[in-house]
Amino acid sequence: ERSYCVTLLPGDGIGPEVVAVAKDVLSLAGSLEGKSLSLKIDLLSCVCLNDKFRIKFQFKEMPIGGSALDAVGVPLPDETLDTAKGSDAVLLGAIGGYKWDNNEKHLKPETGLLQIRAGLGVFANLRPAAVLPQLVDASTLKKEVAEGVDLMVVRELTGGIYFGKPRGFGTNDNNEDIGFNTEVYSVSEIDRIARVAFEVARKRNGKLCSVDKANVLEASMLWRKRVTILASEYPDVELSHMYVDNAAMQLIRDPKQFDTIVTNNIFGDILSDEASMLTGSIGMLPSASIGESGPGLFEPIHGSAPDIAGQDKANPLATVLSAAMLLKYGLGEESAAKRIETAVIETLNRGFRTGDIFSSGTTLVGCKRIGEEVLKC
Amino acid sequence: ERSYCVTLLPGDGIGPEVVAVAKDVLSLAGSLEGKSLSLKIDLLSCVCLNDKFRIKFQFKEMPIGGSALDAVGVPLPDETLDTAKGSDAVLLGAIGGYKWDNNEKHLKPETGLLQIRAGLGVFANLRPAAVLPQLVDASTLKKEVAEGVDLMVVRELTGGIYFGKPRGFGTNDNNEDIGFNTEVYSVSEIDRIARVAFEVARKRNGKLCSVDKANVLEASMLWRKRVTILASEYPDVELSHMYVDNAAMQLIRDPKQFDTIVTNNIFGDILSDEASMLTGSIGMLPSASIGESGPGLFEPIHGSAPDIAGQDKANPLATVLSAAMLLKYGLGEESAAKRIETAVIETLNRGFRTGDIFSSGTTLVGCKRIGEEVLKC
Ligand SMILES: CC(C)[C@H](C(=O)O)[C@@H](O)C(=O)O
Ligand SMILES: CC(C)[C@H](C(=O)O)[C@@H](O)C(=O)O
Repeated sequence: ERSYCVTLLPGDGIGPEVVAVAKDVLSLAGSLEGKSLSLKIDLLSCVCLNDKFRIKFQFKEMPIGGSALDAVGVPLPDETLDTAKGSDAVLLGAIGGYKWDNNEKHLKPETGLLQIRAGLGVFANLRPAAVLPQLVDASTLKKEVAEGVDLMVVRELTGGIYFGKPRGFGTNDNNEDIGFNTEVYSVSEIDRIARVAFEVARKRNGKLCSVDKANVLEASMLWRKRVTILASEYPDVELSHMYVDNAAMQLIRDPKQFDTIVTNNIFGDILSDEASMLTGSIGMLPSASIGESGPGLFEPIHGSAPDIAGQDKANPLATVLSAAMLLKYGLGEESAAKRIETAVIETLNRGFRTGDIFSSGTTLVGCKRIGEEVLKC
Repeated sequence: ERSYCVTLLPGDGIGPEVVAVAKDVLSLAGSLEGKSLSLKIDLLSCVCLNDKFRIKFQFKEMPIGGSALDAVGVPLPDETLDTAKGSDAVLLGAIGGYKWDNNEKHLKPETGLLQIRAGLGVFANLRPAAVLPQLVDASTLKKEVAEGVDLMVVRELTGGIYFGKPRGFGTNDNNEDIGFNTEVYSVSEIDRIARVAFEVARKRNGKLCSVDKANVLEASMLWRKRVTILASEYPDVELSHMYVDNAAMQLIRDPKQFDTIVTNNIFGDILSDEASMLTGSIGMLPSASIGESGPGLFEPIHGSAPDIAGQDKANPLATVLSAAMLLKYGLGEESAAKRIETAVIETLNRGFRTGDIFSSGTTLVGCKRIGEEVLKC
């Protein structure tokens, strides 16, 4: 039996609903570990339950974002960060909501998210965007363009303009008010994210596209230089470079040309969201954020959707798939991860859909129910 | 008779071919001015040519970009900038090519482009992206999503991270090499681009969406604050705000929700290219860059396409339409502008297509020929 501590950070809006479902799925996937992929097959083939292979989870739920602001006045309480740091992996729901939109920077829910990313040192954000055959119609792209899209954006997450200093407000030479931020990357920051990306590309289809704006920005010139140098250590990976404006176009023109994309924090923010929308089902997309060591942070890419919060309408599958990434990238439990992924696909094959991915001929269900259907698979 | 000096900057790659076509179209549109929209109708209705309304152009061709580098060693020769400044409007083809890709920053063709934008003070870059009914199939978006898309991105062009200081290379506290840039906006820079955007929105459908990353960046917080304050002067324009990552998604999910978008230099670079690709025909898309006073800079949004340069394959219509924007936004010659736009549409209606927009059932022609067909309309 293996045992792990998982910190749950439900957060705001639909966060609590989707995390609750993912927690149940994670538990069951753990208790089924060591058996064949589906319980049904286990029973049919009379394989005995073998507790030795079980994965046990100890969950700790902590506040973050707007709900932490409401409860204790800060978007990332110290106890939340400490608990997260002391655990084996962290599963986050979503943060933010209209209520806190006009808060000052240090009291924004988003700030809590940036703080936990920095606090855990999770510099590599992996964002897969794949068009599932079951959901190809959900894409606004033509079927022949969307079909078969399967890419991964590796986004640098703890550097660049998000965290660069100096930043703030001031005045310029004309005594005018200004707002400013610094886009900055060091060699080691670039190298470590590039290495993660080369490794990811190696395990995928061996193609890595590094996206920058090296025709204008010095920070991008250094980025391109380092990525190019590191490429010699990964001769099996085919490296290309693309300017960010062109990448934004190519993702729409021909998304299948991409396998793995690596880019900085802000370009990754934009391009991974763009890529996710190609699938038409961002309610399905997970993400993993990992560091050098220490627990990873796993979260759906969608937001807190305050307008449907508490109505049992949210799609929990992105969080369920984030739990699968938690198993795979966070704990090295690949077979349990696979079990979850298979159960999600199976649930879709059986026709169950939440509102965001509903199409005629399928069965519309709520957040809890689709979770129960996943548990049955 | 009105007379204007127009600086032509053919630049690199396909630049010279497309500018040559646009020049001819501009000349004819000028010489036909004062008559009804098409020469055919003029002749049929026996309207006499009235020289009083003619527009005469004096063209001056100057080097920029890679060809300027090759000729005189800098991407923007002083004489080019001086000539441009002394003229009434500037028409640019395209700049850049593989040959100069590894040049140092100050010897990159792109640097010449940034220098002329800054030199002319053209802070407002207008980039329309409209799906023409004739070309709706060229889009990779589903027909029902693409059809009717008609938006305008107003991009700030002479500030932000493109020009912000400090910038460069250095070392950090750990003595590691770094590359850095500064994203900075002042109140007056934000105000003037916002005003242009409000005016543009007012003349379009009265909806303005300001795109920023105000949940993370101070420069964006100031941006949002100023745009919000200015909105009170434009009560007839409906203002909304959107984060850049969400905008990148919404452009794919439902592009018709947008009328006018205003954003900073780098987000505008990315989003305007993304928006242009929604149309599937970036060979058709013009742009206008205008300042407080002085000549505007007009250019197609596509690049120099070195792979097809000199083969008479390029689509000159984006440059032809840029010439129409030159007439409209640069010289206030709206009826001559309209004449060109109508001729382009007419050419498409008559079935002529260059390779990039060809579809079965239409007539494939080269750069020169499609130019001749435009001249006939
Ligand atoms: C909420 C926001 C701060 C965050 C980001 O910009 O990183 C989000 O957009 C994301 O991509 O996770
Ligand atoms: C060539 C490059 C410097 C330029 C830019 O980034 O502004 C181009 O992409 C554009 O959008 O006109």
